[in-house]
Amino acid sequence: MAKPLILVSNDDGITAPGIRMLVRVAMKIGEVVVVAPDGPQSGMGHAITIGNTLRLDRSIALEDLGVEAYECSGTPADCVKLAKHHVLRERTPDLVVSGINHGSNSSISVLYSGTMSAAIEAAIEGLPAIGFSLCDYGHGADFSHTEAYVEKIIRQAIVNRIPENTALNVNFPKKSDEPIKGIKICRQAHAKWQEEFDERLDPNNRKYYWMTGSFVNFDKGEDTDEWALVNNYISIVPCQFDLTAHHAIGMLNEDWDF
Amino acid sequence: MAKPLILVSNDDGITAPGIRMLVRVAMKIGEVVVVAPDGPQSGMGHAITIGNTLRLDRSIALEDLGVEAYECSGTPADCVKLAKHHVLRERTPDLVVSGINHGSNSSISVLYSGTMSAAIEAAIEGLPAIGFSLCDYGHGADFSHTEAYVEKIIRQAIVNRIPENTALNVNFPKKSDEPIKGIKICRQAHAKWQEEFDERLDPNNRKYYWMTGSFVNFDKGEDTDEWALVNNYISIVPCQFDLTAHHAIGMLNEDWDF
Repeated sequence: MAKPLILVSNDDGITAPGIRMLVRVAMKIGEVVVVAPDGPQSGMGHAITIGNTLRLDRSIALEDLGVEAYECSGTPADCVKLAKHHVLRERTPDLVVSGINHGSNSSISVLYSGTMSAAIEAAIEGLPAIGFSLCDYGHGADFSHTEAYVEKIIRQAIVNRIPENTALNVNFPKKSDEPIKGIKICRQAHAKWQEEFDERLDPNNRKYYWMTGSFVNFDKGEDTDEWALVNNYISIVPCQFDLTAHHAIGMLNEDWDF
Repeated sequence: MAKPLILVSNDDGITAPGIRMLVRVAMKIGEVVVVAPDGPQSGMGHAITIGNTLRLDRSIALEDLGVEAYECSGTPADCVKLAKHHVLRERTPDLVVSGINHGSNSSISVLYSGTMSAAIEAAIEGLPAIGFSLCDYGHGADFSHTEAYVEKIIRQAIVNRIPENTALNVNFPKKSDEPIKGIKICRQAHAKWQEEFDERLDPNNRKYYWMTGSFVNFDKGEDTDEWALVNNYISIVPCQFDLTAHHAIGMLNEDWDF
């Protein structure tokens, strides 16, 4: 059997340590092509570049790994679109992986996540896809405990397939003295970010703001990603791109009067 | 009963004709505060501003309407966060409306839509929210046929409530000679954008790309937003922010081996 073709992207940019780890693992399993942003694109959600041009160039950032790599001026979703329709064309990837993100993308953060938007964009294209994130925001974050699990999950995805129209959101607990307890398939916890805005004055005495905030979890369910991560499990949430709140259709038809 | 407080945002920017129409209608019904981007933010999906500062200033763009209005340098989701936590603070909006977008946000476009990300961000904050879009991309688009329906939908939302953790995605057919047939509560059609990249050379002979694409609808269901719009109905899709593909959890637990 031919080696599987694995497309790699991320949102921290092609020079981030997390993507380097992911590329190294993917190269053990298959033929790898990288199309990733040329700089940080964190928090870009499912943004795409409309009304502006895109750049796409061969990248030397991962040259020492001997991988075919491109850097793109656009968002993570742009990267996947360019990879599919311009770089790979007739070569269909067997798997698209994104990350490993520096920072959690569990619970509500999935919506803001560029890492997961790359994976979800791949799912929209009909490709099996996984986003990987580590619950550690540091540039110097230790990814070593994730390596064996990333390999295991990629191999399982290739053998056992990912359910159709679904991308997996995989989050790893921050490295600690306690070993990881295992992997749990979870649902997204119901939570939100509680924002605060730090108001400051620029050198011209004009106001500007920094967004800060804290994570508030409303959901104590033991089947959630938040529960898994707090208890030192790896969480996997299958994510869909159909946003329809099916249960609400009946309510609206009954209660509303047109 | 006090007038309801209605927060208005959009993604085409505070100077777009669509938001002006929405503000005019909202002012018939309640007290209105506008916090909208200071320029176009189309296709921004659920992006938020991380690692960068935000500006927020009083705007004169809607001064002739006599409305309290602010323009923000950030994304639509940033606008809603700033509105809730900095502008309004203790004043809780009874409804958040976004749009009216210049262009369709039906089907898969909901994921790329800044208009809908403002509404979904409001839903995450526990606020009832509606995004309005017109299936006409032109800056000179005719919104006149939407006015009575926008008013009706806003009044219904205030009286009959929007289901919890849900934002409504309302799309209007483009103005035509045929009158609108009515309103349909729908599910999101399964569709995608088929991208093509137009490769060009800049004046320095370096390649750049324009993303173009065409919409491909895989879903012929008569309960979808695409069906409604093609048949000259207004479509309303209730959207949720829980992306969990609940049906896939069992499949993964059965088929995968950890």
